[in-house]
Amino acid sequence: MISVEDRARNFAERILQGQVGAAARAMTWVENMSPEAEPLLTALAPHQGKAQRVGVTGPPGAGKSTLVDSLVRVARGQNHKVGVVAVDPSSPFSGGALLGDRVRMSRSLEDPDVFVRSMAARGCLGGLARTAQEAADILEALGKDFLCLETVGVGQSELAIAQSCDTCTVVLVPEAGGVIQAMKAGLMEIADIFVVNKADRPNVDEMQRQLMEAASFAERDQWRPPVLKVTAIEGQGIGELYAELRRHWDWLQDAGRLDKKRQVQHQARIRELVRAALEERLWSEPAVLVSLAQAADQLRMGQIGLHQAAQKVWAGVRERLAHTSLE
Amino acid sequence: MISVEDRARNFAERILQGQVGAAARAMTWVENMSPEAEPLLTALAPHQGKAQRVGVTGPPGAGKSTLVDSLVRVARGQNHKVGVVAVDPSSPFSGGALLGDRVRMSRSLEDPDVFVRSMAARGCLGGLARTAQEAADILEALGKDFLCLETVGVGQSELAIAQSCDTCTVVLVPEAGGVIQAMKAGLMEIADIFVVNKADRPNVDEMQRQLMEAASFAERDQWRPPVLKVTAIEGQGIGELYAELRRHWDWLQDAGRLDKKRQVQHQARIRELVRAALEERLWSEPAVLVSLAQAADQLRMGQIGLHQAAQKVWAGVRERLAHTSLE
Repeated sequence: MISVEDRARNFAERILQGQVGAAARAMTWVENMSPEAEPLLTALAPHQGKAQRVGVTGPPGAGKSTLVDSLVRVARGQNHKVGVVAVDPSSPFSGGALLGDRVRMSRSLEDPDVFVRSMAARGCLGGLARTAQEAADILEALGKDFLCLETVGVGQSELAIAQSCDTCTVVLVPEAGGVIQAMKAGLMEIADIFVVNKADRPNVDEMQRQLMEAASFAERDQWRPPVLKVTAIEGQGIGELYAELRRHWDWLQDAGRLDKKRQVQHQARIRELVRAALEERLWSEPAVLVSLAQAADQLRMGQIGLHQAAQKVWAGVRERLAHTSLE
Repeated sequence: MISVEDRARNFAERILQGQVGAAARAMTWVENMSPEAEPLLTALAPHQGKAQRVGVTGPPGAGKSTLVDSLVRVARGQNHKVGVVAVDPSSPFSGGALLGDRVRMSRSLEDPDVFVRSMAARGCLGGLARTAQEAADILEALGKDFLCLETVGVGQSELAIAQSCDTCTVVLVPEAGGVIQAMKAGLMEIADIFVVNKADRPNVDEMQRQLMEAASFAERDQWRPPVLKVTAIEGQGIGELYAELRRHWDWLQDAGRLDKKRQVQHQARIRELVRAALEERLWSEPAVLVSLAQAADQLRMGQIGLHQAAQKVWAGVRERLAHTSLE
């Protein structure tokens, strides 16, 4: 039997040679948290950081999939090799069908220089944002130099995915209250570029005006998020979107901005990994579990409150952790 | 100035006297993680555990809100005082409107013995499952003895909320592949009662048959989840649903099952609190932050992989935690 480490290294080499099948298999490892995933990603670590990672997010129905399809075609016209990670964390109910439609409609799929991976929440074990980023790592190692991470909804994990990208594109459609809702959803803070899709609809100019006002407040370090009108289904405005994405990429290269941004991204990924490992180790300690059971009993009897219960458990946790290794 | 503790105690007393306004204010404290929340909940701790907590979950469009409205009316007819926590974690986009509709349609709102609280993800700071449970705690202290926790979608937080209840009701509508999708969403494992809503649609008998088959595998400790056909909008079958909910409640009283279930629920809540506190303390330690920054730099340069980076940070974490208090 070939060892896990050897198999992982073998796949890493094949991915670096551009073998699509090896990349697909590796993404499944990542989704399933197979033992191969960790040595594989370690082997791919020196081959990261060159590709622009573009996040595409926005409310359901904004036409993000269509937009990404059009964008992929434009990027291919610029000789990029393109990777897409399409994420639906919300639900297998809507999700299955949506992603299915997406795959069917995507003309890009017949192009060997485009790789599209769909991911649904239930399919992956280790947190969706983490899995999506690791899939993007594999795509970059495969030679893709333009990566899109597309999310279906606007929940917590979608925000996390969008924030893990270099350039975050927020897609909205003209509708009453749309800008207010985007604000409530926390989309204003994360947008590097706003796109108003379905620009043939009424109210598009009003929405653009509101977004430009919002963008003027969001300006930072000489980048004011542009507001683009597109009609993704007809490919209108997508060339301009691509140009703005690359302008943002150039801006990031300047004055060490990309390094700073990557530093933040990497810190977030390390934190998440430490958090998950900590969590796992913590609640497998017998002494901790005993004190947890005792505290829960006292809580059930109304003898103590929830916060007092947590403090009791904490004391034991603290002691055990000092002797716990992450290995 | 009155102290935070005194204000919290004062509100706890007013809630226990049945003052609705005090309860509403307290729920806002919980959502905002105001300093009053903790002493308030501690003061209410001895007044918990008597009310049945019914979780209602299922895919979007299954008619959960309508079902809950009908159920509330039936429960009122049985002289229950009823509290409803309606949670929409998925998105402010669909959510705002949905919850708005819900509030408008609910005839129960004019009844002083019914209290409905809507919650959206963005409105609350401390994790939606936690906030929803704390809102239910407040409702129980207010004197409600029948509590419904209703979720709009079927994501992770919805599952967590449903599992935090005594009786979990999974609502589906007859449609092709519905049972398979419910399985994928993890709904089979958590259901104590299945409801097929919109029973006037075709295929309702086929779905009921499939669910009964699934339920036969889910039988545990002499409880096989019943499968009920209802038409919530006309109130049909809701009396039977109420009866099954109470039959489950009686079953729980028997043989110490409720105590065991509450023990599990309380443990989950304590764990979540310890986890959140740990997280917060961990990443505010200067020494930990320094090692995090160093590891992220090495990662960015491709000198180490993500997992090696996490291990480096872990070593420092472990040491610092030994000296960290939860206070």
